[in-house]
Amino acid sequence: MAGSTYGTIFKITTWGESHGKALGVVIDGCPAGLSLSEADIQIYLNRRKPGQSNISTPRKEDDAVEILSGVFKGVTTGTPISLIVHNTSQRSGDYGDIATYYRPGHADYTFDEKYGFRDYRGGGRSSGRETIGRVAAGAIAAKLLLQMGITVTAYTRSIGPIEADMNAFDKAAILSTPTAMPDKNASALAEDYLKQTMQELDSCGGVMECIVEGMPAGIGDPVFEKLDANLSKSIMSIGAVKAVEIGDGIMVSKSKGSENNDAFCMNNNTVSKKTNHAGGILGGMSDGSPILVRAHVKPTPSIFRSQETVNKNGEEISIQIKGRHDPIIVPRAVVVMESMVAITILDALLLNMSARTDRILEFYDRV
Amino acid sequence: MAGSTYGTIFKITTWGESHGKALGVVIDGCPAGLSLSEADIQIYLNRRKPGQSNISTPRKEDDAVEILSGVFKGVTTGTPISLIVHNTSQRSGDYGDIATYYRPGHADYTFDEKYGFRDYRGGGRSSGRETIGRVAAGAIAAKLLLQMGITVTAYTRSIGPIEADMNAFDKAAILSTPTAMPDKNASALAEDYLKQTMQELDSCGGVMECIVEGMPAGIGDPVFEKLDANLSKSIMSIGAVKAVEIGDGIMVSKSKGSENNDAFCMNNNTVSKKTNHAGGILGGMSDGSPILVRAHVKPTPSIFRSQETVNKNGEEISIQIKGRHDPIIVPRAVVVMESMVAITILDALLLNMSARTDRILEFYDRV
Amino acid sequence: MAGSTYGTIFKITTWGESHGKALGVVIDGCPAGLSLSEADIQIYLNRRKPGQSNISTPRKEDDAVEILSGVFKGVTTGTPISLIVHNTSQRSGDYGDIATYYRPGHADYTFDEKYGFRDYRGGGRSSGRETIGRVAAGAIAAKLLLQMGITVTAYTRSIGPIEADMNAFDKAAILSTPTAMPDKNASALAEDYLKQTMQELDSCGGVMECIVEGMPAGIGDPVFEKLDANLSKSIMSIGAVKAVEIGDGIMVSKSKGSENNDAFCMNNNTVSKKTNHAGGILGGMSDGSPILVRAHVKPTPSIFRSQETVNKNGEEISIQIKGRHDPIIVPRAVVVMESMVAITILDALLLNMSARTDRILEFYDRV
Amino acid sequence: MAGSTYGTIFKITTWGESHGKALGVVIDGCPAGLSLSEADIQIYLNRRKPGQSNISTPRKEDDAVEILSGVFKGVTTGTPISLIVHNTSQRSGDYGDIATYYRPGHADYTFDEKYGFRDYRGGGRSSGRETIGRVAAGAIAAKLLLQMGITVTAYTRSIGPIEADMNAFDKAAILSTPTAMPDKNASALAEDYLKQTMQELDSCGGVMECIVEGMPAGIGDPVFEKLDANLSKSIMSIGAVKAVEIGDGIMVSKSKGSENNDAFCMNNNTVSKKTNHAGGILGGMSDGSPILVRAHVKPTPSIFRSQETVNKNGEEISIQIKGRHDPIIVPRAVVVMESMVAITILDALLLNMSARTDRILEFYDRV
Repeated sequence: MAGSTYGTIFKITTWGESHGKALGVVIDGCPAGLSLSEADIQIYLNRRKPGQSNISTPRKEDDAVEILSGVFKGVTTGTPISLIVHNTSQRSGDYGDIATYYRPGHADYTFDEKYGFRDYRGGGRSSGRETIGRVAAGAIAAKLLLQMGITVTAYTRSIGPIEADMNAFDKAAILSTPTAMPDKNASALAEDYLKQTMQELDSCGGVMECIVEGMPAGIGDPVFEKLDANLSKSIMSIGAVKAVEIGDGIMVSKSKGSENNDAFCMNNNTVSKKTNHAGGILGGMSDGSPILVRAHVKPTPSIFRSQETVNKNGEEISIQIKGRHDPIIVPRAVVVMESMVAITILDALLLNMSARTDRILEFYDRV
Repeated sequence: MAGSTYGTIFKITTWGESHGKALGVVIDGCPAGLSLSEADIQIYLNRRKPGQSNISTPRKEDDAVEILSGVFKGVTTGTPISLIVHNTSQRSGDYGDIATYYRPGHADYTFDEKYGFRDYRGGGRSSGRETIGRVAAGAIAAKLLLQMGITVTAYTRSIGPIEADMNAFDKAAILSTPTAMPDKNASALAEDYLKQTMQELDSCGGVMECIVEGMPAGIGDPVFEKLDANLSKSIMSIGAVKAVEIGDGIMVSKSKGSENNDAFCMNNNTVSKKTNHAGGILGGMSDGSPILVRAHVKPTPSIFRSQETVNKNGEEISIQIKGRHDPIIVPRAVVVMESMVAITILDALLLNMSARTDRILEFYDRV
Repeated sequence: MAGSTYGTIFKITTWGESHGKALGVVIDGCPAGLSLSEADIQIYLNRRKPGQSNISTPRKEDDAVEILSGVFKGVTTGTPISLIVHNTSQRSGDYGDIATYYRPGHADYTFDEKYGFRDYRGGGRSSGRETIGRVAAGAIAAKLLLQMGITVTAYTRSIGPIEADMNAFDKAAILSTPTAMPDKNASALAEDYLKQTMQELDSCGGVMECIVEGMPAGIGDPVFEKLDANLSKSIMSIGAVKAVEIGDGIMVSKSKGSENNDAFCMNNNTVSKKTNHAGGILGGMSDGSPILVRAHVKPTPSIFRSQETVNKNGEEISIQIKGRHDPIIVPRAVVVMESMVAITILDALLLNMSARTDRILEFYDRV
Repeated sequence: MAGSTYGTIFKITTWGESHGKALGVVIDGCPAGLSLSEADIQIYLNRRKPGQSNISTPRKEDDAVEILSGVFKGVTTGTPISLIVHNTSQRSGDYGDIATYYRPGHADYTFDEKYGFRDYRGGGRSSGRETIGRVAAGAIAAKLLLQMGITVTAYTRSIGPIEADMNAFDKAAILSTPTAMPDKNASALAEDYLKQTMQELDSCGGVMECIVEGMPAGIGDPVFEKLDANLSKSIMSIGAVKAVEIGDGIMVSKSKGSENNDAFCMNNNTVSKKTNHAGGILGGMSDGSPILVRAHVKPTPSIFRSQETVNKNGEEISIQIKGRHDPIIVPRAVVVMESMVAITILDALLLNMSARTDRILEFYDRV
């Protein structure tokens, strides 16, 4: 079965394992005529690189992207864009022993059950490095969205018990703090918390959030291809995400209709909403308010404490994981979330162009 | 754009509006040789029928299903199964005035923005009646899963502040209580809460949960088609769902790796897990433990209090919604969740048959 | 596996068997705002009805179509359009004995091999009646195309040895002759030929052709989704078609480059071609010239002569087919070809709206 | 729009232009556990390399394939297989002038119309080099098919007027003759014909044929996903193919039912057919006889004679094409046809595993 392709019109296919020769992505269906350079993509990839702070693994990964096709004279041609990132820093020696047992919280056992065996080096296809292709494609989607006046911004909402203060939202901090939090104070507290967690040979979870601004109303679909349904899929497909919320999310289950309904109002002659409990999506389609999505991320499963598990011979054993691992997944996953949201939003916008007969006739000039 | 088809091998296409002539579904890709009668499907449809208790709208909907194709001599033929439910009880008169304004919390505005106009009668395609097709298809998926030893069970976990006691889980209560709670005491409390809510001309939200038992390990995919990603999409595509959780869900973000990792152990010579924080899915593939999914459902947007909104002329107005509406969506949506999960699980199982070369060769007898 | 859905944006799903309760189609992704009535569709369905001449089976099939959803106040809503045709004239008694053996040239044996058994009544899902759904959907596609200035016209090119004279092309004759030939003289000769064929208890093949006029240039795709590739699939998916040609078709293999290349020229300030050997498609994309496709159709396999075959017990037997069968498939299949071409062309046009960045920005008004 | 992905379960995505850095393919959904080396793939790629005879362009293309992912310890892992071929011999200087005008028979004009501009170097994405990805993927499909006892063999049936004598079919000759004909005598005649054609600064067309042996019965689908429909699409998607025939192909239109029907018979206790006019497919599903497909290929459009055309300024001009071009496409396209057929057949086999309930239950061991 094929599961590495995502999207209908803007369609991406990722490939590559943690310790293979390279990783990459093919973007098929990117509209022609978008100016695009490797630098546009590298900016996004750099946001997921490790080794950039003391709360991230000291592994050095260069992750330099190369455009192999689909761009001619600095402009997309409409044909598939193939992007590659060569693996350079992988030390397979670290991973030899994990071939024989199943690490708790990892996909080792499920891989063996599905495929009969696995490329155990560094998690193989289930490594966080798999997201390189997503982010490289996301950079392109985001660039096109920006030209349409749409911005996609993801950030860390909380790390363990430390929550960013959204009233002090500081967009610049997302890129400047090692936590990707939009709040420098919370970020400093979170760093302390993470250092303590590392000293305890443990890891922790967190929450990431993404906001889409400038979205026109009416994008998405009322049934299975609801915009929120596709956002959920795209975000839940990021490793370690265990819950997705739209707008008020889980709080709606404790809410009353009189509280949760957003009253419509007029704003600059445009239909608007007085509140945004809905998170910018009504009936599966964007309502013109900012789209708000949240993802809950589990703690890094690779911890340095002794753990109990079983090996391939069916024996119960104790293991001690080695290697270089982040104490938390969230700060580097934020750009992955931003990428998956950008790809999903763009695809919905492209699909929506054929929603109305009058606009089709106008497009083809035959009214 | 086309958004009413779901699934890859077991593929369903639903159609119909609240007040049209009929609603239905075409199930394409249902394996041949499954015994199937209208009664098999009717049992599921009856679980979403309104008018069955005093906490549900008094609308009477017969929702009698008819098999139009794909079944011969009581057995599926492998060709498309077309199911139809005729609309009989619809009173369009109730809905005339909503043509001119946008109900808060509903898809009226987003429909107009997407398509230019809408079938406003009873919510049109965004009505809860749209789920008839999903449930009819889900009944078939569940029947086939049962033959494979797999059960899918959804129920109401909470209604407003009233939570079912999972230590007193009573499966029979799901079908016998008007709330679909697996706990009769909690259900009685919830009924009281709902009556009070109705007296306040208000509505409330709740949580539904689904458990899949008997699932073999290794089903799903490690990247975009993760089993949890597809479950999220399928569940978030149910109207009014605003959050989806897998296993421990949102709690993982406050958890430590040492707490959240499930230790593997041996159980009857089979690899098993001592705990199930993961909710039965690791790295996007089933791990052999029960799969656990939760959905948070917003309060019914149709409330009888006066609400502020705008009309199609861009004037701010006050409205008073009429008609017959449930004070909560959850009890009737439980079977919709069960259906979407069954369809998703079955499709993943069918796709998984081609995962391994040795099993393909064995299937085609050429080892 | 699911094989009854066709198209990406304008997506149709057909269902129904020859002797089931009904047949139909769900059209998902039809743009909103197209005026549509049952009469629009019935006109197309009437062209495939039998019993309209002495060269067609005397079976009477009413084939009255009913719109069940997706149209509100005479206009498409953008949601799925469900169409149904009830079976009224089926006499299952005629088909009882074919349950036990495999008719030469039919799908009886392959159905049994794939599914383990079959609905043998009237060919079941492999009956020509399966095309009702295609034609009903094709009528809608053709109506939208016409508003874009695009016409799709299919006709009978030859019946056995009798060929229509294309220099005497008479469009009105397509609908007025029983053969669907655009040449009344040839049609009269073909009728004689068919009567003789029937007297010999035999059947014969023929050729149908389809021309698309008004097509803008640049529609289609350069690799797998070539416009000619999709036309081939759509036409070859019509039962009994055994060859598909584009433009000069098979003649190109005997041609020289200097003969086959179409010189470009200017015509009314537009790029045009002096000849059209290419049949309106270059590199998988429309070139602005008329698109020309041909299909070769095998003789009706149901003939009244004694034939040799085997039964389900593996015994070699002689059989005598009964029932009511056309001596040739082509005249009634012409409208099926026209429908499949219309659906394919429309889908390509809708997909093409997102080919260029500048047009997307213009569409969303943000240049 | 995305058009470089083909297949449902065994899904390939090709990328790359004639004069870009590299070309390649990602194969997603290849079953795990297939032993695979670069040599397995190189054998196929070598069959499409130019410069191997005096009837092929003297361009030297190394076309050495590299496996970048999806294979671990010589065995496929079930995750995407990424294959790359670096471009080494491309001389872009040859192509500078074609940027300004439209070559007859090429996709220059249609590319400009679709995308607004094009990568004109060597045909860009419409170059024959695009087929590298198809052939690399086809090699893998063919290897798996062979383990299932299924062989796919394509060859040149005719070149201009010179036809291979099928009664003297010599399989070894396909790989040893420069024409890929299974008949050395015809091949020698064809070489003479091609030399003469080249002297006349012209090119010519031809016919290629493909036979699939060992195919089980019942593979394919009765409606849109007919095996012959998908074969047609896959073959018509090869550049320069203008007609596709199944079995007797175009001859069926002149045939009688009594001639064209293949009588069933018993052969070694298996249902078989006395003749094979159907080409191994009945009702869209394989019937157990060899599958026979033919493709008619137009003459190479790049000829060295002076030709008339227009330029981008809308001026009518005369042009003289330079560069290195084969006088015929067929001999090097034969392996492309073989590849597309292998991919299509394999995908149908994998999809077919879920056709029957009893076989699914047996697969999952729960009868």
